[in-house]
Amino acid sequence: MCNNINPSYNGSLNPSSGIIKGDTNSPLGGTKRGLHVGILGAAGYTGGELIRLLVNHPEAEIVFANSESNAGNPVADVHEGLIGDTDLVFTDDMPFDKVDIVFFCFGHGKSAAFLKEHSIPESVKIIDLAQDFRLSAPGNDYIYGLPEINRNHIATAQHVANPGCFATCIQLGLLPAAKMGILTEDVAVNAITGSTGAGQKPSATTHFSWRTGNMSIYKAFTHQHVPEIRQSLTQVQGTLDVAIDFIPYRGDFARGIFATCVVKTEAPTEDIVAAYKEFYRDAAFTHYSDRQIDMKQVVNTNKALVHCEKYGNKLLVTSCIDNLLKGAVGQAVQNMNIMSGIDEKTGLNLKASAF
Amino acid sequence: MCNNINPSYNGSLNPSSGIIKGDTNSPLGGTKRGLHVGILGAAGYTGGELIRLLVNHPEAEIVFANSESNAGNPVADVHEGLIGDTDLVFTDDMPFDKVDIVFFCFGHGKSAAFLKEHSIPESVKIIDLAQDFRLSAPGNDYIYGLPEINRNHIATAQHVANPGCFATCIQLGLLPAAKMGILTEDVAVNAITGSTGAGQKPSATTHFSWRTGNMSIYKAFTHQHVPEIRQSLTQVQGTLDVAIDFIPYRGDFARGIFATCVVKTEAPTEDIVAAYKEFYRDAAFTHYSDRQIDMKQVVNTNKALVHCEKYGNKLLVTSCIDNLLKGAVGQAVQNMNIMSGIDEKTGLNLKASAF
Amino acid sequence: MCNNINPSYNGSLNPSSGIIKGDTNSPLGGTKRGLHVGILGAAGYTGGELIRLLVNHPEAEIVFANSESNAGNPVADVHEGLIGDTDLVFTDDMPFDKVDIVFFCFGHGKSAAFLKEHSIPESVKIIDLAQDFRLSAPGNDYIYGLPEINRNHIATAQHVANPGCFATCIQLGLLPAAKMGILTEDVAVNAITGSTGAGQKPSATTHFSWRTGNMSIYKAFTHQHVPEIRQSLTQVQGTLDVAIDFIPYRGDFARGIFATCVVKTEAPTEDIVAAYKEFYRDAAFTHYSDRQIDMKQVVNTNKALVHCEKYGNKLLVTSCIDNLLKGAVGQAVQNMNIMSGIDEKTGLNLKASAF
Amino acid sequence: MCNNINPSYNGSLNPSSGIIKGDTNSPLGGTKRGLHVGILGAAGYTGGELIRLLVNHPEAEIVFANSESNAGNPVADVHEGLIGDTDLVFTDDMPFDKVDIVFFCFGHGKSAAFLKEHSIPESVKIIDLAQDFRLSAPGNDYIYGLPEINRNHIATAQHVANPGCFATCIQLGLLPAAKMGILTEDVAVNAITGSTGAGQKPSATTHFSWRTGNMSIYKAFTHQHVPEIRQSLTQVQGTLDVAIDFIPYRGDFARGIFATCVVKTEAPTEDIVAAYKEFYRDAAFTHYSDRQIDMKQVVNTNKALVHCEKYGNKLLVTSCIDNLLKGAVGQAVQNMNIMSGIDEKTGLNLKASAF
Repeated sequence: MCNNINPSYNGSLNPSSGIIKGDTNSPLGGTKRGLHVGILGAAGYTGGELIRLLVNHPEAEIVFANSESNAGNPVADVHEGLIGDTDLVFTDDMPFDKVDIVFFCFGHGKSAAFLKEHSIPESVKIIDLAQDFRLSAPGNDYIYGLPEINRNHIATAQHVANPGCFATCIQLGLLPAAKMGILTEDVAVNAITGSTGAGQKPSATTHFSWRTGNMSIYKAFTHQHVPEIRQSLTQVQGTLDVAIDFIPYRGDFARGIFATCVVKTEAPTEDIVAAYKEFYRDAAFTHYSDRQIDMKQVVNTNKALVHCEKYGNKLLVTSCIDNLLKGAVGQAVQNMNIMSGIDEKTGLNLKASAF
Repeated sequence: MCNNINPSYNGSLNPSSGIIKGDTNSPLGGTKRGLHVGILGAAGYTGGELIRLLVNHPEAEIVFANSESNAGNPVADVHEGLIGDTDLVFTDDMPFDKVDIVFFCFGHGKSAAFLKEHSIPESVKIIDLAQDFRLSAPGNDYIYGLPEINRNHIATAQHVANPGCFATCIQLGLLPAAKMGILTEDVAVNAITGSTGAGQKPSATTHFSWRTGNMSIYKAFTHQHVPEIRQSLTQVQGTLDVAIDFIPYRGDFARGIFATCVVKTEAPTEDIVAAYKEFYRDAAFTHYSDRQIDMKQVVNTNKALVHCEKYGNKLLVTSCIDNLLKGAVGQAVQNMNIMSGIDEKTGLNLKASAF
Repeated sequence: MCNNINPSYNGSLNPSSGIIKGDTNSPLGGTKRGLHVGILGAAGYTGGELIRLLVNHPEAEIVFANSESNAGNPVADVHEGLIGDTDLVFTDDMPFDKVDIVFFCFGHGKSAAFLKEHSIPESVKIIDLAQDFRLSAPGNDYIYGLPEINRNHIATAQHVANPGCFATCIQLGLLPAAKMGILTEDVAVNAITGSTGAGQKPSATTHFSWRTGNMSIYKAFTHQHVPEIRQSLTQVQGTLDVAIDFIPYRGDFARGIFATCVVKTEAPTEDIVAAYKEFYRDAAFTHYSDRQIDMKQVVNTNKALVHCEKYGNKLLVTSCIDNLLKGAVGQAVQNMNIMSGIDEKTGLNLKASAF
Repeated sequence: MCNNINPSYNGSLNPSSGIIKGDTNSPLGGTKRGLHVGILGAAGYTGGELIRLLVNHPEAEIVFANSESNAGNPVADVHEGLIGDTDLVFTDDMPFDKVDIVFFCFGHGKSAAFLKEHSIPESVKIIDLAQDFRLSAPGNDYIYGLPEINRNHIATAQHVANPGCFATCIQLGLLPAAKMGILTEDVAVNAITGSTGAGQKPSATTHFSWRTGNMSIYKAFTHQHVPEIRQSLTQVQGTLDVAIDFIPYRGDFARGIFATCVVKTEAPTEDIVAAYKEFYRDAAFTHYSDRQIDMKQVVNTNKALVHCEKYGNKLLVTSCIDNLLKGAVGQAVQNMNIMSGIDEKTGLNLKASAF
């Protein structure tokens, strides 16, 4: 989630069937699932997508989905796509003693504020989807949750700061180059995002009439994800003395991010491609593609695709993700799996929408 | 698939990563999966979507994906969304002795033609996605594969004719009314479909420049799915002496069908709603919704939603499905599960794209 | 405009160039144009589209564009598409003595309220775009502004009630049938509208993330435009004893309305087609098409297209318009032209966007 | 038109009304219009858009619209949006002696080929929309038709080579910087285009199912428009020793181009903005905007918008046009007006679609 969100907003468009058949993910019900999960800010976009993932996760059980404004409302009435999947009801309760892990699906800034006012047992793991703890700082014990570079730290972490959506897509395009140490001149980054990146609250730039068939940019050169991108590139390259010139575009689609990065380098193409393939050899969801990529190859999945081409001394890297999944809650569940010692891909073998 | 398709068309847009990590659905590989599957016409839209489902199906293994024109090409190069999921390669071979079940993903008319020229062992089950065997006829042993009315027959069937996409959506809206016996006056049906319903071959009406932001109708009152709708309604109501006046619309979206049906009846609303709920009480994927529905609640899932409202003596039924899933291969896999005696929902707990 | 609108909402997205070259439509400037125009509610969708039309209208000059909330803001800063076309600034003034005609671009209900609180000189003509005066009633001297049936009355009218968008599209599909007197059984009407029909204020159903690729209905059988449709059909047929069963759909496009109407009749096709062609023989913007129609043929124009097909005893009429033009301010300008005795098409020879 | 086109393709979707009311642009009819126009390749996208413009152009009359494959077909049957506007019929004739000016709407490469096989009287002016004559070369007497830099030469030209769509948008973003002489380091250009840029022939990348909600790039660093961009920048700056690194994107919209250019410079922001405003002070359709721009401000118009922002020593220029209008036939008509000594804006005061 890249902008302010409004987790308390209730779209109130979604019907409730009132009929759930077969297995459901009943809150506090007696299931055999091992991982007990709580969700804060559960009525926003990321909260909804997290619930869509967890109702089909074989090891996780949603113990509570907290939303003050929606307390008492069935989750399937508020979040699109859940009719028949769950009879879960929003609660204003926060029974932290009944959960193993909590997801913070708050808007940016609210996670830190929440922790000042609430006490969470030390045994409860936290995955924060906001940007509050992504940057290293004295006293910040949150591990930056990008498995492609921090898997071992995540595995033993108590607290994880989940990366930003643009940050994930752009880093995955640049990290192997950083590993090669070739980020020695300013990098030109252009990336376009879907409207879900702007959150659930209706606004002028998410109005259908304005956005459909339209194109524009915002926060050029000043986007809040650049510092976390720089932090990761510095971690991998050792030092980073160049600018990351990032221009974000508003796309007229709902899901996905597509990025291009241009790096000036004399390194031969074969070396670059080999380095990229090696870098992602063991990545569960990030794949180097020998052919050109298009965004819908990853929409509705937790995958990232990366592809390289070289023109003269310019390396062009394209990368794409689904902003709500690998760019938010898909990666959060991936982190939960790693933190819990279960297969990283559990519950994340998602069918691409493709069309 | 509602129009002619061109399974041999190779979009040639999709890249291949050349790197598959972790479990893959290797053809002829030694896995422990119980159900061996062959696919004919595997390079078309339905073939691709079927592969997307089966690579994550825990009980099925794709033994061969047949396509003459694409023989030798990696499936992930042709079908969007499969990079990293499978190293399957199209083949022009058809080793029927190695499979338990075969899916026919041919264009309409080609299934019957194929069977005249090829011999398939009696032990191999067939699910035909074309319309060739949907209508009862002397010598036609194909069971009409709509689980909501034919589950028991499907469970013991050797051959299943998978319903059409529009036919599925409209029938699910009208069958409970037929059960009540209230289809006694002409029924007005309007339904709008996504562009994937028109198949993979580019055409004037699937050209992006023409279709985006546009609206039009085609085959009004003459669509080829009406006969199978009438057949099912007659089966359930006993007799059907009224017209099904169906107007199909081309939607400017890729996936989904949304239908409205208007039935003239004096039956009280409560009775109707009760009958609809009862009719779908045990349905695995079809849900009656007490609230109004919108199409994206089911897009990228195998679900169908049905909702009723009454205005004077007019019953308005809305229903929606994903045309490629519940309207095609999702229902085909549901039928495969039923025919194979495994849980009907196996491999079909799909996350709604929602946005 | 079909729903509530919020003319005071300032999208604040649109830039101002600050540079206008060549002829501009300067407020109160000394131009040679003959028709002096005032606009109330000028900051909403219809107000903006009206300004887009009038800046190129050779006979009209905008004297004031009233908006309390935007007073002092350049029009080109608020309304998309006007940079370089006008240096007009919103005002909170209403100098009625300086204008020949006033357009009410208020939300529904506000026109009548405004007139109770304000006095407009008798010499000033009024065109009201809301629904406040569309239905005949004692003391209501507003002429219903559908030129296809009321051109002569409009020509001499002092006050005109501009028809609704859905109402325009559906009436134009049914009026020739009414003239034939064949509306003798309930008429099934399905029509789909663009998001601009819902007005400028962002809402859950106009949120891009929700609406794109989605389909839904609203106000089925109860839409507020049915009474004015019935009024016109009664005027032309003499009597109307049947239901107009209208189901409105939310389209995932910005502009346009596409409607289908099904009429049960034994009248021969040739007679029907001849009657339709005769009915629109002299219409400036409404055309009978011998071939099937699609909506983008009229998007961004003031045209309406009508086409008939017959299946058994069912007449299927398709019709389409641009909801903001023929369905709102295009028709309003057409009415202004007629009321002012100038060529009906003046300023309305608009290039179809087509794509 | 940026890719290959297929002017002989007949979409065959568009109906003909058979009824034209009021003034029409009858071929060879006795009108008082002064400028007689012939169109070659009239059945393609640019041919259609040119006809849409010319039917409302007060000084031009279409004498012939040539298309071999569509000879005999009404233009309004082939081109969307023309019903009721013209009874023009495609012809396979080319009566050059009856025209003052001819537009070549051929695919790239065909203009030169055509001229080798056909003789056009010296008195007939030519505007070529292909790229065949855009680059200066010995014996090439075509003037590059960008009025912002070549208005005087165009005014006296007999032959004009109309600029490419991407080339127009990008040049308009960079020319004032070239005038300042600040293009002294490699320029990073990213631009996204609508599907109409790919022409009328259906293809895999213009298939609605693939393109909607998708994002991808093509011809990065190698697009054919770069040479004409370099030619203009060199003309204005005097010399150009840096790379124009252009990455083109396929947009999921039909009309429009939006471009960003990043220029490294120490020039102060005020100087840059002043230079940009001065450069376009007299431009008829190109406007500098003090505020951020979005593409739909120009869609369906002949305008270009340009906006500058500075971040450190990086100048970010955004620019946008409608690819079919300012990027093709709108600019061609602008050139025709200039060549004919009439007001540059004649017939080009187009209402923005805005939504």
